[in-house]
Formats: sequence, structure tokens, C-alpha cells
Amino acid sequence: MPKAIKKIGVLTSGGDSPGMNAAIRSVVRTCAYHNIECTGIYRGYQGMIEGDFKEMGARSVNNIVNKGGTILKSARSKEFMTVEGRKKAHQNLVNANIDALVVIGGDGSFTGAEVFNNEFGYPVMGIPGTIDNDIFGTSHTLGFDTALNTVVECIDKIRDTASSHNRLFLVEVMGRDAGHIALNAGIGAGAEEILIPEQDLGLERLLESLRKSKASGKSSSIVVIAEGDKIGKSVFELKDYIEENMPEYDIRVSVLGHMQRGGAPSCFDRVLASRLGVKAVESLLEGKSNFMVGILNDKVALTPLENAIKGHSEIDRELLRVSDIMST
Amino acid sequence: MPKAIKKIGVLTSGGDSPGMNAAIRSVVRTCAYHNIECTGIYRGYQGMIEGDFKEMGARSVNNIVNKGGTILKSARSKEFMTVEGRKKAHQNLVNANIDALVVIGGDGSFTGAEVFNNEFGYPVMGIPGTIDNDIFGTSHTLGFDTALNTVVECIDKIRDTASSHNRLFLVEVMGRDAGHIALNAGIGAGAEEILIPEQDLGLERLLESLRKSKASGKSSSIVVIAEGDKIGKSVFELKDYIEENMPEYDIRVSVLGHMQRGGAPSCFDRVLASRLGVKAVESLLEGKSNFMVGILNDKVALTPLENAIKGHSEIDRELLRVSDIMST
Amino acid sequence: MPKAIKKIGVLTSGGDSPGMNAAIRSVVRTCAYHNIECTGIYRGYQGMIEGDFKEMGARSVNNIVNKGGTILKSARSKEFMTVEGRKKAHQNLVNANIDALVVIGGDGSFTGAEVFNNEFGYPVMGIPGTIDNDIFGTSHTLGFDTALNTVVECIDKIRDTASSHNRLFLVEVMGRDAGHIALNAGIGAGAEEILIPEQDLGLERLLESLRKSKASGKSSSIVVIAEGDKIGKSVFELKDYIEENMPEYDIRVSVLGHMQRGGAPSCFDRVLASRLGVKAVESLLEGKSNFMVGILNDKVALTPLENAIKGHSEIDRELLRVSDIMST
Amino acid sequence: MPKAIKKIGVLTSGGDSPGMNAAIRSVVRTCAYHNIECTGIYRGYQGMIEGDFKEMGARSVNNIVNKGGTILKSARSKEFMTVEGRKKAHQNLVNANIDALVVIGGDGSFTGAEVFNNEFGYPVMGIPGTIDNDIFGTSHTLGFDTALNTVVECIDKIRDTASSHNRLFLVEVMGRDAGHIALNAGIGAGAEEILIPEQDLGLERLLESLRKSKASGKSSSIVVIAEGDKIGKSVFELKDYIEENMPEYDIRVSVLGHMQRGGAPSCFDRVLASRLGVKAVESLLEGKSNFMVGILNDKVALTPLENAIKGHSEIDRELLRVSDIMST
Repeated sequence: MPKAIKKIGVLTSGGDSPGMNAAIRSVVRTCAYHNIECTGIYRGYQGMIEGDFKEMGARSVNNIVNKGGTILKSARSKEFMTVEGRKKAHQNLVNANIDALVVIGGDGSFTGAEVFNNEFGYPVMGIPGTIDNDIFGTSHTLGFDTALNTVVECIDKIRDTASSHNRLFLVEVMGRDAGHIALNAGIGAGAEEILIPEQDLGLERLLESLRKSKASGKSSSIVVIAEGDKIGKSVFELKDYIEENMPEYDIRVSVLGHMQRGGAPSCFDRVLASRLGVKAVESLLEGKSNFMVGILNDKVALTPLENAIKGHSEIDRELLRVSDIMST
Repeated sequence: MPKAIKKIGVLTSGGDSPGMNAAIRSVVRTCAYHNIECTGIYRGYQGMIEGDFKEMGARSVNNIVNKGGTILKSARSKEFMTVEGRKKAHQNLVNANIDALVVIGGDGSFTGAEVFNNEFGYPVMGIPGTIDNDIFGTSHTLGFDTALNTVVECIDKIRDTASSHNRLFLVEVMGRDAGHIALNAGIGAGAEEILIPEQDLGLERLLESLRKSKASGKSSSIVVIAEGDKIGKSVFELKDYIEENMPEYDIRVSVLGHMQRGGAPSCFDRVLASRLGVKAVESLLEGKSNFMVGILNDKVALTPLENAIKGHSEIDRELLRVSDIMST
Repeated sequence: MPKAIKKIGVLTSGGDSPGMNAAIRSVVRTCAYHNIECTGIYRGYQGMIEGDFKEMGARSVNNIVNKGGTILKSARSKEFMTVEGRKKAHQNLVNANIDALVVIGGDGSFTGAEVFNNEFGYPVMGIPGTIDNDIFGTSHTLGFDTALNTVVECIDKIRDTASSHNRLFLVEVMGRDAGHIALNAGIGAGAEEILIPEQDLGLERLLESLRKSKASGKSSSIVVIAEGDKIGKSVFELKDYIEENMPEYDIRVSVLGHMQRGGAPSCFDRVLASRLGVKAVESLLEGKSNFMVGILNDKVALTPLENAIKGHSEIDRELLRVSDIMST
Repeated sequence: MPKAIKKIGVLTSGGDSPGMNAAIRSVVRTCAYHNIECTGIYRGYQGMIEGDFKEMGARSVNNIVNKGGTILKSARSKEFMTVEGRKKAHQNLVNANIDALVVIGGDGSFTGAEVFNNEFGYPVMGIPGTIDNDIFGTSHTLGFDTALNTVVECIDKIRDTASSHNRLFLVEVMGRDAGHIALNAGIGAGAEEILIPEQDLGLERLLESLRKSKASGKSSSIVVIAEGDKIGKSVFELKDYIEENMPEYDIRVSVLGHMQRGGAPSCFDRVLASRLGVKAVESLLEGKSNFMVGILNDKVALTPLENAIKGHSEIDRELLRVSDIMST
């Protein structure tokens, strides 16, 4: 019989995303609700190694549900990739009487959690926090919905000036390996073309599409490009390439950058964070371990961490077709 | 064999909601994509009766994906409730060579569409557009997600002043028959208590909850109340009631009102509108009729209009529990 | 020669407004810059009486420049209206070695500061923090600009639904004694008519204006009404009155309420807060006292507190004419 | 005696800015108010040369007060720099019975207007529309206030992620020749250091400031840089330079780009646009010509176009000091 859990530690790790604070709040309050203690661990695994802990009660998380970033801060820890680092971390948890861990982060963070669980039999539960939505086992990661709203609001502004000047804008959005942001925000922002890592449309097709767009009477155009698109050119090289081939276009580049990671979370992300935090804590209390808590078909669902790490969150091919039709 | 569809009419009806313009755009562009003509019908069924039509091509819907309201305007039509009105409307469609209809609206609008279909065998397809999310056959109606963001942004502002003054705010949100907005936005905004039409918690429990909240050290509180809550008191009567019973509270009321219906749609609503518009048109082209196009388990899905009207969109009981835990 | 100032106390008092936190930050950092100590006083004069103090260094005010509300909280203190209360407060300041006071608030707060100064010869400096912009001696009070943006964003949303339905909306904004918010936000939001306390246009003229608006082909209308308008009817009574006289109008009411006091301050308010805080502290260090620090002709300027209290901030009559022309 | 003005033309020229539509609306409605005709001229001087005109009545400008961009579109015209181009343009105005011109734009546009006035004795009036605030004769140009809010909102989001990761962000904002945006938004966003074209602080001082910031316990930092800063390095070269000298910093770059030109105008810019449009039209009707209508000391004021072009809008040196103190 597993040891009864009396204190749970919570940390955020990897790139931060909007909704992480709401998830921390949910974990802390669910602990309080069940009369369990809760410890905040600062700066992810690095703070676990350094024993950078703080007791948290229900009132410690007042007024953070709507704050971007993470009050526990985040970091990437090289030391946690070593056995020594993990041993130190484990000893700190034991010393502080922390019985289980909730890790809010992306798949790098989950890999760390799984290794930790395997080595020490230590109960862990993951909550997917990343704007990229690239985690298997959940239809939405924390922060994805907020990032989409940030991107479309930015492109709405860019469109104002694009259509005032009949210009073509190349807008680069986050997504090194996954086109979820580009695809959804591209449709939402009414982009003429969307370039994503999952699909190489080829440069020729892009030019074709821009020519058609021009011919159809569109006076301005937006192309949305994921950082890691398959075309293999930087967004600035792409600008040069289009200018060479279509000198009639007045082209501007906009790289949205890190603002996509920040900002007050959307209502969707706050509710999602609240639900996932409850489930993470209650699953640990039920003796479960080594799962990620996600959302599938609008229901909270557990996926073994192992699968979440190995799996791949596919883009929705239907959306590619919708995007095509919308740019008619 | 049904007559091939060569021209589709589109209208918005009932209370407007953010995303209606994006849905109109999607219907128009999907028609263009399939080389079908498209006619915009102004002011819902009333404009159908009056023949208030306008041909729409792909360029007619430029730059509206991000606009609140509806460029086709909306109205409630008493005349359409009469056989004569509907006959006139049908004749106008026939005269204009419009072969099928996409109706964007709520269940009142769908009832009209179904009756119209029954009487004239006329092909109709519904798209759920209402902020209330009270339609059976879709997990999300167009505008719901945007309205949630509007509400939480308002309450975030109210919370600034609430916590500066240690006050209790009663915030009334839309939802005459359905608590979806109150429940989700209440969790998202960190409300201490949420009152919805689906559940009568009783006034005693509300006072109890406020007392507990005060005792637990919370200095300010937000209670979110759906218009149609079961307690049977107006929000102003509720204020008086609490003040009598808990004179230690300094209470303010805020009725958010119609701004919840407006504003630029969220990315979620824009993508949803785009998907539903494509499916509505393509379903008509495939010979289907009398369905509502919704989203279930993240997939576009058809529900017979009849079921959409009769059915009821249940609130998610899990969220009530999450809300309880969050207000620990 | 006055005693050299080595420690300054800062408090917020009266209704809170966006930019108060930025002003607190500025006071604290200007003290740090000049190697002066700074003490935060909680809950305004009430906290001064109760000795609710906290030492604040430059790092105490990290990341608050963009936060609505006030981290020092605000309150109205009846006890401070008594000599005994003020004596207690003064003794607490003396005991804590606080040599001077910066009071951020409206004219009620300034009256308290002036009395305090008169009774004890205690150095005080005021910073005008109120959304109403009703303080003499400054063209802008802290929070006014932010409140205007909040109001126009709300009315932009209301306009979406108003123009979708061809409706008339009566929108009540804050301003019990001053029409600055109604007048500026009314122009900004494109209101057809604006009702303010400073001017009684009469009900007949309002009806006339609405008739003209209808005749000129406007399909929807917004009327912006300050809480304290001269017409002497509540916004709901006004609705009834218009409906009786112009039954062709479908009228809705929206009372924006306390959200106008919250939210992240605009850039204007943040810069203003920063400038006023610097000037307040440096003026005290120069031996000045009993002034309000405001902005006049884009320059920071001192006004004797006495004048700030007695004076009246007039509305700009030119704006009334601009509003008239804009609603052509 | 000058010919009585019966029809006024209005155009937008140069880089677009938020508030241009509100200014167009104001010009059109002020004409209607005075029973003068109004003609919209598309794509600035180029459309004047091509006769791309459209009659505009009061209803042509419904619902644009809150829209970014310009419904009249903007362009830069090389042809207008030639005498032939200007002759053609003048002839088109004469043919269309347009008696005077309102030009909304920056100093390039004003230069064109002045030359045009000199050559043909044609009545012109300028309205300063540019986000850069670099026009002499007005304390605020149209769009400046909105751009500041856009920038601080972006940096607020960047700060969320900066402080979660203890990072240094270099944020480049618009302003090739003028540091107004960088200076104001830098203060508003709580930047540690601000680099502007008007002042070369030197790289050594920047490093010094960052070292002090680190030493003082700040865990994250934002440096705001105007495009045209004096340091003579691109923001990416600056990143490399700091990394070499302060390897302890984890640095990210964000170039905000063209979104700064778009978006719904702030209330301030809408009111300003309304006031300037009224004054521009009424000044022309009074027989004045060759002025820019600006705002000085909160009052609408005329400045000869010649001075507006030759003059220079100085940054407020006080703000540099405020910025220094705020980053204590």
C-alpha cells in the first residue's frame, strides 16, 4: 500500500505559458480543500535541487488566476539531467516531507518527471503547460488558447496598416516543431497562406497562391509562418525570395516573438487550469502516479506520461482545407 | 433527386453574437470556392419576407472576420410566425433563384427554419450563433468563448477595485435560462460563489459561503450571478438581503449587460465559425437538409434541427465542483 | 529651518483609480534614488490611525507599474474626521520617524491632508488620483485616461450589437458631479447625445436630437449619460420617458459601473504617475508642503492644496460643440 | 476676397496611424454640419493625380471612429514630387469643384501640401497623423497615444515571461528619428534603460546600468530601444555585445514592428481627431490656409505648415530624468 499523501509539491518548468499561475492556484487550493499541505518549488527542477521551497496555503494564491507568467518562476536545469542532481532533489523532497509532485510544463519537463518517478518510485503527475499545443494526450495545452488570441489581436493590428497600404505582411509566430499556433491563428486572422512545419507546400505554391490572391482583387495579404516551417528559409530570406519573384509586392516582416508567451490567460485557459489542477491533486490522492492530466473531448483525462512524451500531437488536417477555402 | 444547388442564401437571426460575421464570411467564401452563388439576406427572416437581398462574392466579406455584430443585421420577425409571412419569404427566395438557406442564430431561429423546411421542403442548415451556449448538439455556440473573455476581463477590472476596498461585488452576467456563462466565467474570474438557473443553492448557503470566505481571510469577494438564477431575487434585492444579514459587507452591484454580445471574436470563435460555415455549405451541396452544424468532441458534427431545438445543453456538473474547490 | 526629511510616508485614499500603483512605485523609487526611507501606509488615513505601516524599498514595488487598484489599499476613515483620530495618526507618524506624507487621492483626501497639515504643521503633498478628473490644478487626474479607454472599449462592443439590431442604447458612465468622462468618452465612442451634470439640455432637446438622428438615416444610436446628469431622472426612468415619446425605438440600458475604476493603467497614466511621484517627493525634500502636484499644459505644476480643494475643474465647452458636430 | 469654399477634399498620406479614420469622419461631418460638400480622395496624393475620388456624406463615415488604418487608404506618390504630377492633381481638383484640401499625414505629406499651396495658391490645411509624434506645433500627433498603449501592452506580456525566466529583453520600438515612443513607453512599461536617437548614452553606460540593476536585486530587465537609436548597432548586434560583456545574462530580442501602427485608436486619439477635424474645416471656411492644426497646452492651435515642417519636436528632457529615477 502506498504511503498516504500529506504534502504535495508543485513546480513550473520549461517555457512559461499563460495559465500556469491559474494551475498553481488550483493545485494549492485543491490541496487546501482536501486538508493536504502544499509546497511551492521555485525555478522548476533547479529549485528542487537547491531546496528553494515555500509553503503555500489557500491565501498564497489570491489574485493570481488572471496573471501571466508563473509566480514560482521557471528554469531549465542541466543538473537535473544528472543522477547526482536528481538524488539531491529527491533528498530535498524527502527532507521537506513532500510526498508527491505536480509538474506543470512541456514534454522536456515530463521526461524529467518520468525519469524521476522511475528512479525513486516517486509519485508524479504532469499538467501540460506550453503555448505550442504539441503534447499528446490533450486537445489543448495551457496557454495555447491565450497565445492564439494574442496572435490574432496582433495580426488584426497589422492588417489595419496592411490594408491601408496594400501591402503583403509575413508574420512569424511561435512553433518550432508544431504548426498549431500558425494554423489556428492563421485561420482566425484571415491569413491568405499559412506555412507550418508539418507540411511543405513548396515555394512555388506560395507564389501561386499570392498571384491568385492578387488576381482575385485582394489588395493586401497576410502570410502566417511558424518558426519551424518546412520551407527551410528564414522569414527574411522568404521576403527576399518573394520580392525577387513578385516585385509588385511591397513586403514587410513581423516576428511576433515572446509576447506570445505572456499576458492574462483567456477564460478558456483559466477554466482548463482549474480543472487540470483539481484532477492532478485528486489523482495523486487516489494513489495514481506517472500520468499527465489533459483534456480530451471536453473531458479531463489521464494519459501515461510515457505516452505523452513519445506521442505526437497531430495537427487537424481539416483545418488546412478550411484555411484554403477561407482564402478564396 | 433533389435539385442541384446553385445559389445559397445566408442570414443572421435573433440576438447577435461575436463570430457571426466570421460565419457569414465562411459561408460566402465556401460558396465561391465551390463556384456557387451566395446571397446575403438582411435582418433575418424579416428581410427574407421583404426581399432585402444582396449578392455576395468572396470580396464582399473582406476584413470582417474580426468584427463583432453582423453585417447582415439581425431582427426578430413576428410576420415570419404567420403562414402568410413565410409564403412571402419563400416566394422571394424562389424569385431570386436561391436554392437553400443557411440560418445563423439560436433556437428560436432554428424553430423558424425547421417550420420553413417542413412547409416548403426547402433545404435549410443551421449554425448555432448565441453567446448563451444553450444549444443541444454543440459543445460551443458561436460567441460563447468571446463572451467568456469579455466577462472575465470586466471582472478582472472589478476585482482591482474590490480588493483595494475590501468589498463584495455582485456581478450579473447574461444567461436567462442557462448558467454556462456564469459558471465558466465565474471560475475564470475566481468568483467566490456562482448562482445559476440550473441549481438552487439557496440563500442560506450563499451567506454561509460568504461567512466562510470572510473567515478564511479573504478581504474581497466576487459573486457571479446569471440573469435567470433560481434564487428568484433580482441582483439588487440580493444585495439588500445580504446587507441585512451581513452588515459587515460593503456591497456593490455590477450588471454587465449587452457589451457581452459585442466585441471582436476570439480566435476560437473565428476558427469555429470558419469550420461551421464550410460544413454548412458543403452539407447542403451534398443534399443534406434540416440539420444544425455544431462541434462535438472537437469535430464538426451534424444534429437534426429538431433535436437541437428540443434538446437541452446541460451544464457540466464537474465545473460546479471545481468552482467549489477553487473558492477554498 | 524645517527639519530635514529622512523618511516619507505614502498612502492612497478615497476611490481607487488606475495609476495609483504606478504613483506609489514612483514615490518609493524616488525616495530610494535620493537615499530617503519610505513607508507604505495601508488603507489610507484609517491605516495611519491604526499604525498599519510597512517599510518599502525600491524592490517592494517591482512589477506593479501596470497593475490596477492599489497595493496599499484604500478606505474612507470616519475616525480621521475627528481631532482624536488625527492626533493618533500624527503620533504614529512621529513614532515611526516619518517626516512627511504623500497622499494619493481625490479632494476628500486632500481636505484631510490640509487639515492635518494645519493642525500639526506636518509636511504633506497631494497627488490627484481619481477617474473623475474633477480636481482643480491639473488637466488630468490619475486614472482618467484609463477610464476613458475602458468606457470607449465597452461602448464599441455595445455598438456592435446596437447596430446589428438598430437599437438605441442609454449608457451610464461614472461622474456624479463632473461630466468629463461622459463628454470625452461620448465623443470617443461616437455618441449621438451626451448628458452631463454641468449642463441641462432638457428632455425636449434630447428627443429632438434622437428624431433628427433617426431622420438622418442612422439606424442605431448611443446616448452617454453621466451618473449625475442634470435631467434628474435615473437612466431607467429616462428609458421609459423616451419609449413613451418615441415608441419606434427599441431601447436598452447599460450601466458600466465599477469596472471603470479598474484595469491596467494606460501608458499616459503610467507616465503621469511616474512624473507626479518624482515631483511630490522632490518638492517635499525642497521644503515645500501643502501642495498638490498636477499637470498643466503638459508640465508638472504645483497648486496649493487649498485651491485644489476649493477650485473646480471646468469641462471644456469646446468639446460640447465638437460633440454636436460629430453627431451630424 | 478668396472664393467661398463649397467643397472640401480630404486625404490621408504617408504611414497610416490610428485615429486617421476618426479624423476623416470629423472632416466629413464638420462639412455636413456647415452644409459644405466633402470628397474623399483615395491613396493620398497618388489618388489625387489619378482622380480617385468619392463623395462623402455624414453617413459615409458611420462606425469608423474606432477603426484603425484609413478607409481612404494611404500611399507615397513619386509622381506628386514632379510639377507635372501636381498639375494633373490640381486639374482634377478643379474639375471636381473641390475648393480646398485637408491633408492628414506626417511631415512628408505636409511638404507636399505646402508646395502645392505655393504653386497653385490652393487652400490646404494639415492634420498631423503619425505615431512618431515628431511634428513641431503639436504636443500630440494622431496615433501616438494609441501606439504607446500598444507598446506597453506588448511589453507587459513580455515582462510576464521575462520575470518567469529571469531574462533580459531588448525590445525595439518604432521611431527612426524620434525617441518619443521609446521614452514614454519605456517609462510606462517600467524599462530599466531606454535608448533613443536624441541622446547617445554610450554602450559603457548601458552595461553599467544593467550591472547596477542586477546588483540591486532585479531578476529580469527590459531595455527599450528606438529603431534609430544613436548607439549605431542593430538590436541584434547589441544583444551580441551585451552577451559578450555580461555572459550571466540570458538575452532575448523582440522587434515590435508594424502592429504599432494599427489597432482601435485610444479615446484620447479619437477625441483629438474629432477636435482637429473640426478646426481644420472651420479654419478653411474662415479663409485660412497653409496651416497645420495641432494641439498645444490642451488647446487646438494653428501652426504655419512651413514651421511644422522645418521645426523639430523635442523630447521632454524631464522624462529622461524620470526614467532614470524609475529604474532605481
